[in-house]
Amino acid sequence: MTEGAAAALEASARNAEQEVAKVLENAKELQDAAASFISKTSNEEQTLRQRALAIQSSINRVRSLIDSLVYNKLLDSKLAEKLEEDLHRATCILADGDAASLIPGKPQGKFLNMFLGPINVRATRKDIQLKVKEEYNRFKDRTAFLFLLFPAILLSLRHYVWNGCMPAFAVQLYQAWLLFLYTGLALRENILRVNGSDIRSWWICHHYCAMVMALVSLTWEIKGQPDCSEKQRGVQLFLLWAMMQGVAMFLQNRYQRQRLYTRIAMGKAKRMDVVWGETAGVDGQLWLLCPMLFVLQGFEAYIGFLLLKTAFLGIASEWQVIFFGFLLVVMAIGNFVNTVQTLMTKSKFKAKMKRSKSKTLLGDTSPTS
Amino acid sequence: MTEGAAAALEASARNAEQEVAKVLENAKELQDAAASFISKTSNEEQTLRQRALAIQSSINRVRSLIDSLVYNKLLDSKLAEKLEEDLHRATCILADGDAASLIPGKPQGKFLNMFLGPINVRATRKDIQLKVKEEYNRFKDRTAFLFLLFPAILLSLRHYVWNGCMPAFAVQLYQAWLLFLYTGLALRENILRVNGSDIRSWWICHHYCAMVMALVSLTWEIKGQPDCSEKQRGVQLFLLWAMMQGVAMFLQNRYQRQRLYTRIAMGKAKRMDVVWGETAGVDGQLWLLCPMLFVLQGFEAYIGFLLLKTAFLGIASEWQVIFFGFLLVVMAIGNFVNTVQTLMTKSKFKAKMKRSKSKTLLGDTSPTS
Repeated sequence: MTEGAAAALEASARNAEQEVAKVLENAKELQDAAASFISKTSNEEQTLRQRALAIQSSINRVRSLIDSLVYNKLLDSKLAEKLEEDLHRATCILADGDAASLIPGKPQGKFLNMFLGPINVRATRKDIQLKVKEEYNRFKDRTAFLFLLFPAILLSLRHYVWNGCMPAFAVQLYQAWLLFLYTGLALRENILRVNGSDIRSWWICHHYCAMVMALVSLTWEIKGQPDCSEKQRGVQLFLLWAMMQGVAMFLQNRYQRQRLYTRIAMGKAKRMDVVWGETAGVDGQLWLLCPMLFVLQGFEAYIGFLLLKTAFLGIASEWQVIFFGFLLVVMAIGNFVNTVQTLMTKSKFKAKMKRSKSKTLLGDTSPTS
Repeated sequence: MTEGAAAALEASARNAEQEVAKVLENAKELQDAAASFISKTSNEEQTLRQRALAIQSSINRVRSLIDSLVYNKLLDSKLAEKLEEDLHRATCILADGDAASLIPGKPQGKFLNMFLGPINVRATRKDIQLKVKEEYNRFKDRTAFLFLLFPAILLSLRHYVWNGCMPAFAVQLYQAWLLFLYTGLALRENILRVNGSDIRSWWICHHYCAMVMALVSLTWEIKGQPDCSEKQRGVQLFLLWAMMQGVAMFLQNRYQRQRLYTRIAMGKAKRMDVVWGETAGVDGQLWLLCPMLFVLQGFEAYIGFLLLKTAFLGIASEWQVIFFGFLLVVMAIGNFVNTVQTLMTKSKFKAKMKRSKSKTLLGDTSPTS
């Protein structure tokens, strides 16, 4: 080895050594910077959180003060109304603004914990929360169509091709898809809830019921020849229910989307609207959608009764048929009660909104707007 | 109304008005503070993230520089080893320190998106990531026991009480539980992965297979009398497989926990260990656990073959039997290949660790330790 080569070797080795030392040094510096950033951020967050909680309790205190003043007739009703609107504005700022992530959300609930463990599914930023909601709507859109299509295909193939006798595999494939779909919906709705959505617990409970139903339907033996049309009566009714669900989903989605577009076009689709509009998945010009929903709910109960009748007449007497019939009737009643309650809440809310339209819809930047 | 009462009325009304104005003012101030806090934090985070990415690319650059120097014999092998260890230390600082949350994690993958939508399941803080991992271990512990218990009860009741004829409902209940369990495991493992766990994709894939298996098992008609012991041969084998899975899970969990306790007692259970120890759920004194795992994998393949035989001899010729047999053989082969690969990775890693034991296990606070 020449002396020059030896020198070059040494130089490149020294160079590599220096580079490594520098990289290691940088990594340690970054670690320190990250640690101090995290502790500083969490301190600041803590301070802001305390402020948010203090404001929340002030709102509650002042609200009950006003209530008692009104009750004792110590406050003019017109002024009381104005003050309540201001308090509502303050609540909205806390709930929909950047401070929203500071206020502890709803607890995650057992369902999410069961499937996901203790991971936090709360988005800290409002725009991400909205993205989650949008994706949920898109997911429902995509599936509502399939929801209608699959059982329709099965039932028409049964009639025109299979001579009244559906093959077990095709039906079970659809049932497995239903189970996946309802599990996904229940998980997503729970996540939306943690992220501040006001979705009614019944609608989530409804999806739990539907999950159980899909699961039970998988254990349902699809009997073959002879006398298929008799033996498969229960399954047929189940498919009819599924189609009906598809129609309900489809109508609601189409409706919500149209409403959102209209509101965006009118420049009214502010952050708060999304939260307000979420109470049940049905709102706005409800008087078009509601009759349809009530008819569908009636149909749901009817199918439930048909299933029970089928079971008790001995045509299809598996336990699944009785279970389905019973569950469908319960779901129909629950849906009806909750739709009515939603309508009532909405009409109250609308009346209130009308009075304070200029204040809450046209902006929240100035207290005098 | 007396003059005094009128004055009091006015005072309390004015008081309420002032309080409301103050609350509204506070809410607006908080909104501004929160907005500036969020934008400031996200800017700082961006800066730190860029630094982390720069260091990561430096590490890669320097590593390939060293490799080429070693290849061209321009670097002493002893020095090269020392430098590589330093680079490894830098990598560990990035991966396990507070900067870890700054580096973009693995993408969430289709499975999580399908069930949960686009919600972020990555914990930003390392301690929460560790909590998620601990809870995952506890979940596995809880379930491994039931995993063994349920099929054992079913099989012994079948033998001693049910005269060789299991009632469909009991078996289906167990199958539904299995489906829930595997879905939960698959979701949790995907979440762990997003949070930086090195879990091998095969083990997740294995749980997808088990999910499909549990789903298919639900569609499996449990035939009754006469000749139950013949007709229920397939289901029996399925329950045997499930018990075997329970044993494997139980052994692995017991093992991992013991190992963690030992390490904690030895003061070695640092953050990094958790990540390193995660490659397959089996490690440490592997030579005790591995023979058991290989025996269980052999048994899995054997049950697969038995199912296929049952199907082709016409004893139980449903498509589910053939599907199960085939899937079990595939799973056994996959498990075997992956256990072997894990062992190989671990032994390589161990050899490396032995050489640099003093450096990596005893602390990372000082560059000269």
